[in-house]
Amino acid sequence: MVNEPPSASNGSASSRSDGSSSGSEGSKDSSRCSTPVLDAERHERLREKMRRRYDSGDKWFSLEFFPPRTANGAVNLISRFDRMGMGGPLFIDVTWHPAGDPGSDKETSSMIIANTAVNYCGLETVLHMTCCNQTKEEITGHLQKAKHLGLKNIMALRGDPIGEEWEEEVEGFNYAVDLVKHIRCEFDDYFDICVAGYPKGHPEAESYEADLRHLKEKVSAGADFIITQLFFRSKTFLTFMKDCQAIGITCPIVPGIFPIQGYHSLRQLVKLSKLEVPQEIKEVIEPIKDNDAAIRNYGVELAVSMCRELLDSGMVSGLHFYTLNREVATTEILKRLGIWKEDPRRPLPWAVSAHPKRRVEDVRPIFWASRPKSYIHRTQEWDDFPNGRWGNSSSPAFGELKDYYLFYLKSKSPREELLKMWGEELMSEESVFEVFTCYISGEPNKEGHKVTCLPWNDDPLAAETNLLKEQLEKVNRRGILTINSQPNINGKPSTDPIVGWGPSGGYVFQKAYLEFFTSSENITALLKVLKTKKYELRVNYHIVNVRGENITNAPDLQPNAVTWGIFPGREIIQPTVVDPVSFMYWKDEAFALWIEQWAKLYEEESPSRMIIQYIHDNYYLVNLVDNEFPLENCLWQVMEDTFELLNCPTEQ
Amino acid sequence: MVNEPPSASNGSASSRSDGSSSGSEGSKDSSRCSTPVLDAERHERLREKMRRRYDSGDKWFSLEFFPPRTANGAVNLISRFDRMGMGGPLFIDVTWHPAGDPGSDKETSSMIIANTAVNYCGLETVLHMTCCNQTKEEITGHLQKAKHLGLKNIMALRGDPIGEEWEEEVEGFNYAVDLVKHIRCEFDDYFDICVAGYPKGHPEAESYEADLRHLKEKVSAGADFIITQLFFRSKTFLTFMKDCQAIGITCPIVPGIFPIQGYHSLRQLVKLSKLEVPQEIKEVIEPIKDNDAAIRNYGVELAVSMCRELLDSGMVSGLHFYTLNREVATTEILKRLGIWKEDPRRPLPWAVSAHPKRRVEDVRPIFWASRPKSYIHRTQEWDDFPNGRWGNSSSPAFGELKDYYLFYLKSKSPREELLKMWGEELMSEESVFEVFTCYISGEPNKEGHKVTCLPWNDDPLAAETNLLKEQLEKVNRRGILTINSQPNINGKPSTDPIVGWGPSGGYVFQKAYLEFFTSSENITALLKVLKTKKYELRVNYHIVNVRGENITNAPDLQPNAVTWGIFPGREIIQPTVVDPVSFMYWKDEAFALWIEQWAKLYEEESPSRMIIQYIHDNYYLVNLVDNEFPLENCLWQVMEDTFELLNCPTEQ
Repeated sequence: MVNEPPSASNGSASSRSDGSSSGSEGSKDSSRCSTPVLDAERHERLREKMRRRYDSGDKWFSLEFFPPRTANGAVNLISRFDRMGMGGPLFIDVTWHPAGDPGSDKETSSMIIANTAVNYCGLETVLHMTCCNQTKEEITGHLQKAKHLGLKNIMALRGDPIGEEWEEEVEGFNYAVDLVKHIRCEFDDYFDICVAGYPKGHPEAESYEADLRHLKEKVSAGADFIITQLFFRSKTFLTFMKDCQAIGITCPIVPGIFPIQGYHSLRQLVKLSKLEVPQEIKEVIEPIKDNDAAIRNYGVELAVSMCRELLDSGMVSGLHFYTLNREVATTEILKRLGIWKEDPRRPLPWAVSAHPKRRVEDVRPIFWASRPKSYIHRTQEWDDFPNGRWGNSSSPAFGELKDYYLFYLKSKSPREELLKMWGEELMSEESVFEVFTCYISGEPNKEGHKVTCLPWNDDPLAAETNLLKEQLEKVNRRGILTINSQPNINGKPSTDPIVGWGPSGGYVFQKAYLEFFTSSENITALLKVLKTKKYELRVNYHIVNVRGENITNAPDLQPNAVTWGIFPGREIIQPTVVDPVSFMYWKDEAFALWIEQWAKLYEEESPSRMIIQYIHDNYYLVNLVDNEFPLENCLWQVMEDTFELLNCPTEQ
Repeated sequence: MVNEPPSASNGSASSRSDGSSSGSEGSKDSSRCSTPVLDAERHERLREKMRRRYDSGDKWFSLEFFPPRTANGAVNLISRFDRMGMGGPLFIDVTWHPAGDPGSDKETSSMIIANTAVNYCGLETVLHMTCCNQTKEEITGHLQKAKHLGLKNIMALRGDPIGEEWEEEVEGFNYAVDLVKHIRCEFDDYFDICVAGYPKGHPEAESYEADLRHLKEKVSAGADFIITQLFFRSKTFLTFMKDCQAIGITCPIVPGIFPIQGYHSLRQLVKLSKLEVPQEIKEVIEPIKDNDAAIRNYGVELAVSMCRELLDSGMVSGLHFYTLNREVATTEILKRLGIWKEDPRRPLPWAVSAHPKRRVEDVRPIFWASRPKSYIHRTQEWDDFPNGRWGNSSSPAFGELKDYYLFYLKSKSPREELLKMWGEELMSEESVFEVFTCYISGEPNKEGHKVTCLPWNDDPLAAETNLLKEQLEKVNRRGILTINSQPNINGKPSTDPIVGWGPSGGYVFQKAYLEFFTSSENITALLKVLKTKKYELRVNYHIVNVRGENITNAPDLQPNAVTWGIFPGREIIQPTVVDPVSFMYWKDEAFALWIEQWAKLYEEESPSRMIIQYIHDNYYLVNLVDNEFPLENCLWQVMEDTFELLNCPTEQ
């Protein structure tokens, strides 16, 4: 008997077909562990995802943004990515303005904003790129950079010619089709390519028909799908779509939706796009042109009814929104259309990055739970990412803590606000305890300001942490300054609204976790408690100060899985670990935040600054895991016992 | 701030020190997943394990065997390895007899027996090797072969010179020390080397003192530890040990214990070893020389008291037993000394191989649960073994089913016994159902013979399977011919005597599993049942016939973890999976066993043989997993529903 090659099942064998270079990318070095496990779509390229939606009939949307002008604008835009990402866009795209140095490393460049969206916000991202007035080398350089950053999708555009008297350059990039050809020629099938369609014909085209032929050329040259210029009537699009089909354009055509959000933005857009606003719209808008709210409300109504017509036509499954970097109108339209995902299922307990290199990643240390962007930043140079098991992490080093820019160490709040929350003037360590306590409790501090963030948590308390609120408040009051925690979970459904993640039908589990700073006096008592028989085999601890002096009882420095999930027909996923080696890297960051975010709010040599400096220099960072996940969390009792020992030291 | 390299903890950082070639061997290509996880000792070399015992004061033992003469003898010896392995020997060793072609590929050679012990029985194994009258090339060849097979330990001996008038060869191998030097010279630190010590001095040595000096030379040349020749009084050994220490021999010295098991074996041994039996022993033995039982009982008493003296001296922590390939006496001595492990903890749910290449292996398909040696055999050419997660197994192929020898497809029972159990003459498929039912129930068959094995299970029912006995009996009676099953387990302690495995303090889990052959009529009904709403998302199935026609609902052909464990301070272990790809390889073997083990018992063209052949050709092999491990196992209800449908087919 000879072994046959195992035959494909006639069940649900996936056909990850295209033999493109990108297919093997990222999985080239992959070991047996590198299986797509939880979410097949996460491993697909954009055109496959789009095809899957077209086949299933699921409606979807995408969002267009332009790069911000200032670093503060970038911070705000990224927060907007995070919030609008919650609604489940199929992709976002970032526009390209040759005058704004779009391919540079500036934190406001198109390239870097798109990089942030894909890597840090986990959004499938399309980067616009124009070719007019650029050399082949410049364009290739941009594309190579985009590829290096993990961008997989390009919107290929001509761009506006500079100067009035533009002439075709022989051998140069004169039209978008040249860019499409160039991308396919130089990068084979690596990128998914989108091109622009003009429902009314491009304003510079000889005719509507000629413009349709140009569009077909772009598709024939290798474009994967089309996004249209904005239009004001659904009929405009549907006619255009039929005309495209009639001349043999078969790729997806996504209508571009422009919600009217204000009188001036509409005027400007009309000027740029050389489109004419229909009379019936003008008639409504002109009388209310100074009432922004009224115009926005009208714009929302208009967009909703046009989108409904498009979706109802049966020819459209996806809608592309020109957001103008604003949130409210588009979100409202999407919600009213019912295509905003109200309760996005978390594929994993942490925010997944969309970089193709990270497609197999399914385990991270718990330490960066509130700072996922920092984690992604510090691991961006890794060649491969742990999956299946964290394993031995002693080899790959974390990036150094030298880039104090953008979101990595910077708070979203301005200095004045931080001072209000964290204290204009600190009197003692107890003032610091109070800040932590107020953050947990949600109560205002003595000056009446709510503490909505801490250097380690730029957002309010997570829903899960709220489960522990009462106990956390109690210990913070006593100088156990908590910065991360999770309750134990013994097999809740994966659809649980607070602790659930992954596909439905599964069960999720957690070991209780607590991480905090505290004084060396407290550490002495805590260690005595941890070494009692009651806890020594049950609780794992790592205790370290800023100098790296480290005390632990972790067996063989192995990682401890603290979150895991069991799903039907799948291997077990263990996405969060307490890894002793990574903890040493995290402690650098955790201690640095005291100084960079808090101490530096105050004058040098000021008492406030010296208090924070003292804590930084003398406190310890502690993490505790209660391994007995089926029993009641014992970590609060550990704290109680520690306080008791501190109160009656002589009894021991 | 600069990241320091993470400092070693002052906790229990392991020092896997030696920078030897062996240290990196096997983990060279290892990904981040390749962490030692459950059992640090499993990853240590013999001398480290020995050192660990000496340091901790834990008592241990080892067992010496000689190669068998016949293939049947080999099958018996391997069963003995499995049984005596249960007692937890630190290692076993296999002797080397130049006249018996010890380095050959014969199934009875020293090399192949040692290979079996290490790879298939999971025993740390020392292979003896003699050097006298051999060329450097022959010896290097043997050592290379041993290394290739995964043997890591050599007992370096001179061997008995052939012919009376032996003379030293210049540049040749004249003494064991030459072999030790050769091994270290050619294989650096790859092997752990043991040498022989003679408590009374070697019979050919000029003097006791001269022999001690020779021993020291062997240690200085690179030997790691010493096993002594047998002796009859503890004082002999203790004096020898002190004398060794006095001249600076510091490595472990293990006393060789010879339990007297019979008059003739003692006589022969004395002749070979040129030792003198003390008068007090002779006086007891001579009068009872024809009473084997009496001599053995005396031998046990004698050995127990001598071993107690040795252990009580505080100078001895390990005892080496010359078993003479017998089981009873040595086992009794060990039990009476309290160093036989009564309840060996299973490190994993399946028998671990001791091959250094497999040191990271911690996950296997469930299909080979009753045929672990076959699994090891069919995967022996793999370059690396799955750990952490089974992952995508489409690449590594299983070995072909062409080696029908020794234990791979052969039953321990002779043909006549098999016929008694499985039927001298089969009348119909129902006769086959009865055999399966009797195997499960433990009741004798119609001819009054108990069925203690099946082609797929060479041993009686596992304790765990006994939990399912009643239901299994019921379905087998109806032609659901079960060959593998496990109950669901929702978090039992890892120390559970039936389903527990791994270190204490953990929790083990299982999904219910059932694997069986059944007719195509039954399959039609079963599939209808499985596709009902009640089961379609809950139960995963794979159904295949001998031609590889395959029906499954497994998502994306992913493996399904069906056994996992959660342990303090560790990542999650998922040692057993249902892997759709491996199932296609297993089905070849499972179907082949019908023919090779059962059909071939009967004459060609006989009705009995044709019945088995019919089953082989027409039945399906099915596996079912109930993913709802916290709920009551639904697979029995699936069977009930199937039977009901078969009874009332018109109702559907």
